[in-house]
Amino acid sequence: MTNRREVHKKTGRKGNHLPVITLLTDFGTADYFVGAVKGAILSVNPLAAIADITHEIPPQDLEAAAFTLLASYGTFPQGTIHVVVVDPGVGSTRRPIIVSAGEQFFVGPDNGNFTYIYDREPSHQTFHVTAEKYFRRPTSTTFHGRDIFAPVAAALSKGVKPKAFGPPVTDEVRLATPLTPVVQKNGNVEGRIIHIDRFGNCITNITRDIFNDEDATLLVKEKPIQTFRRFYGEDSGSPNELFAIWGSAGFLEIAVNNGSAALTLGVKRGELVVLDRS
Amino acid sequence: MTNRREVHKKTGRKGNHLPVITLLTDFGTADYFVGAVKGAILSVNPLAAIADITHEIPPQDLEAAAFTLLASYGTFPQGTIHVVVVDPGVGSTRRPIIVSAGEQFFVGPDNGNFTYIYDREPSHQTFHVTAEKYFRRPTSTTFHGRDIFAPVAAALSKGVKPKAFGPPVTDEVRLATPLTPVVQKNGNVEGRIIHIDRFGNCITNITRDIFNDEDATLLVKEKPIQTFRRFYGEDSGSPNELFAIWGSAGFLEIAVNNGSAALTLGVKRGELVVLDRS
Amino acid sequence: MTNRREVHKKTGRKGNHLPVITLLTDFGTADYFVGAVKGAILSVNPLAAIADITHEIPPQDLEAAAFTLLASYGTFPQGTIHVVVVDPGVGSTRRPIIVSAGEQFFVGPDNGNFTYIYDREPSHQTFHVTAEKYFRRPTSTTFHGRDIFAPVAAALSKGVKPKAFGPPVTDEVRLATPLTPVVQKNGNVEGRIIHIDRFGNCITNITRDIFNDEDATLLVKEKPIQTFRRFYGEDSGSPNELFAIWGSAGFLEIAVNNGSAALTLGVKRGELVVLDRS
Repeated sequence: MTNRREVHKKTGRKGNHLPVITLLTDFGTADYFVGAVKGAILSVNPLAAIADITHEIPPQDLEAAAFTLLASYGTFPQGTIHVVVVDPGVGSTRRPIIVSAGEQFFVGPDNGNFTYIYDREPSHQTFHVTAEKYFRRPTSTTFHGRDIFAPVAAALSKGVKPKAFGPPVTDEVRLATPLTPVVQKNGNVEGRIIHIDRFGNCITNITRDIFNDEDATLLVKEKPIQTFRRFYGEDSGSPNELFAIWGSAGFLEIAVNNGSAALTLGVKRGELVVLDRS
Repeated sequence: MTNRREVHKKTGRKGNHLPVITLLTDFGTADYFVGAVKGAILSVNPLAAIADITHEIPPQDLEAAAFTLLASYGTFPQGTIHVVVVDPGVGSTRRPIIVSAGEQFFVGPDNGNFTYIYDREPSHQTFHVTAEKYFRRPTSTTFHGRDIFAPVAAALSKGVKPKAFGPPVTDEVRLATPLTPVVQKNGNVEGRIIHIDRFGNCITNITRDIFNDEDATLLVKEKPIQTFRRFYGEDSGSPNELFAIWGSAGFLEIAVNNGSAALTLGVKRGELVVLDRS
Repeated sequence: MTNRREVHKKTGRKGNHLPVITLLTDFGTADYFVGAVKGAILSVNPLAAIADITHEIPPQDLEAAAFTLLASYGTFPQGTIHVVVVDPGVGSTRRPIIVSAGEQFFVGPDNGNFTYIYDREPSHQTFHVTAEKYFRRPTSTTFHGRDIFAPVAAALSKGVKPKAFGPPVTDEVRLATPLTPVVQKNGNVEGRIIHIDRFGNCITNITRDIFNDEDATLLVKEKPIQTFRRFYGEDSGSPNELFAIWGSAGFLEIAVNNGSAALTLGVKRGELVVLDRS
């Protein structure tokens, strides 16, 4: 067990802070899974500060995990290690990986969870975790969150370099819907709905750097949306009017007063959203 | 980044402890909101020990937030910073505030969340947070929990004084139901139901210093309640009998065996409860 | 308030780590209970690192608490203190206890919560907590989690020895279903279903050291289960086929593809499971 000064020396961190390890899973909070993962981390690095992001990702919903990670990782300090375990393929041959990106680390199965991190952080590096000496023993075939991802994250938090866990790879698995909209020659933008929250708000992949005049027409299933609002409580327009708003995750969202935009529009994740500037 | 000794020097704390920041919100735990707030705190003060009180306040239920805060803050150590974000008016002109009370700090919107703290801690001081240099950039109009309250709480935890954030104010917004019952000339007490828990137990605002003989009759909607119990499991009386009990939050509660007192009595929050000593 | 070095001197720990206190309750996460317990711990030991295992044990379900504890405690580091509060008898005369076992500590009511720890750690020692000087004042009759178990756990985390809290006892309350299966003379094993998870998977008390050939027939209610799988995703057999699998908690589990094994078999917790080697 190293002391804190050594930890900082190894990790090259300047401050006197605890290494942060976040958890983002579909485990739910009713069972023993989350507790077992926390214990497995603390057994390797008792100095780790564990922060739950959520354990309520719908079972095996990789897109929801990818979006939730995208919307929260940016607030965490340099050196944070994010453990993401939404893992339908546990026990099969899918690879465990570490992604080093944006001065943070991401640990989990190679199944698309990190798609938006790859898109957002082009200079990321990915490593296939093969060094079994960092695994918990015995290593189960059913609970890699506890036996592989937790101890690997904890070892990272103690300053082990990503390349020590295995060889670099560049053929990571990615989700079908890309984070980046397509800008056409006439200036129109073809975006996608990448997330629908529990209120039915539709989060698109359109960001301010692509679209900052708020003067175009937004088209979803040929239905035009022309009202832009600054905040949800803003009182304007008719009660059931669809409107666009810059959401807190940095994306253009489509919402409706006191209702579900997803139901009103009849859309699902992946739906095309066109910004018509003509 | 300051080291721990400096943190303690700045905060004037004697012990070698981590500064505690609690979170009390209506965010739920399924989305990215809680994670983003934790990251925003840890980015400013990686030494902060974050404790979730709850994120399950019913959406925009200020009274529930105020009661939950009242019932839990007293157990936390001196110097704890409580971040309370139940914030229907986010993006409007309601003020962000810091309340310094009982050797603890409270950070959130000025919308009544802290009403019971004002009542319980008469010598509190409140400050309107205007110093934008402590805000996260860019500052959204929709997520002040992440962009204002989290970094302000983290700065407080590093020893920044409340007055550095903005001017003192004394006209804080308060909820309609006061924490303190009215004692009439004849000794009768007019209290209120300030909380109904998920089992239907009715928590009044009557405390032991007001009423300690347990010899009076409690009247709710003219229905008398004359049985007092020491603990819930105590076996006495008929199965559906209403009884009063000193609850763990320090208040007189009205309960019924295996049932909902709120439904039995047909009452809501705010209902009058009279202690008849005549 | 002692500093960290003194804490480590007192606890005899070698490393520079924060003492871990876990929480396992049936409080739910919507009320003030969890927050009040965390505050009560941090008021006594601000250095404690609190890890939530779960607060979603079904109300008063001692068996579920016992299993969840069993399945998670083993991953935690030496010196961890587990606070388990599923406590139907709060306010009655049931004893508060500390169990010292496997270089960890367990704090809670003496009502069977720790049954599987007794079975798994035969050299455990149990102490009846009677030293009221460690209790929070005033001590309620309704919330011992906050007023007894939290401050006792925090005092333990500061290095107070278990025997300082009260006399040793050996007549702990135990649950009806034992953790250890019965091995018959002919080699057959009589196990029990000790847990049914939310997917309907049936976790038995049969472990690898008892049964490692995977060649026998498993009988539940005279229904034979002959398929063994290595992991859940493994594709073999018919869609609704019952199969056995080594679960991540180390026990033999009975599952069914895309369904509830408990419903398919019509079984409840406590049901006999026979391994027929004849």
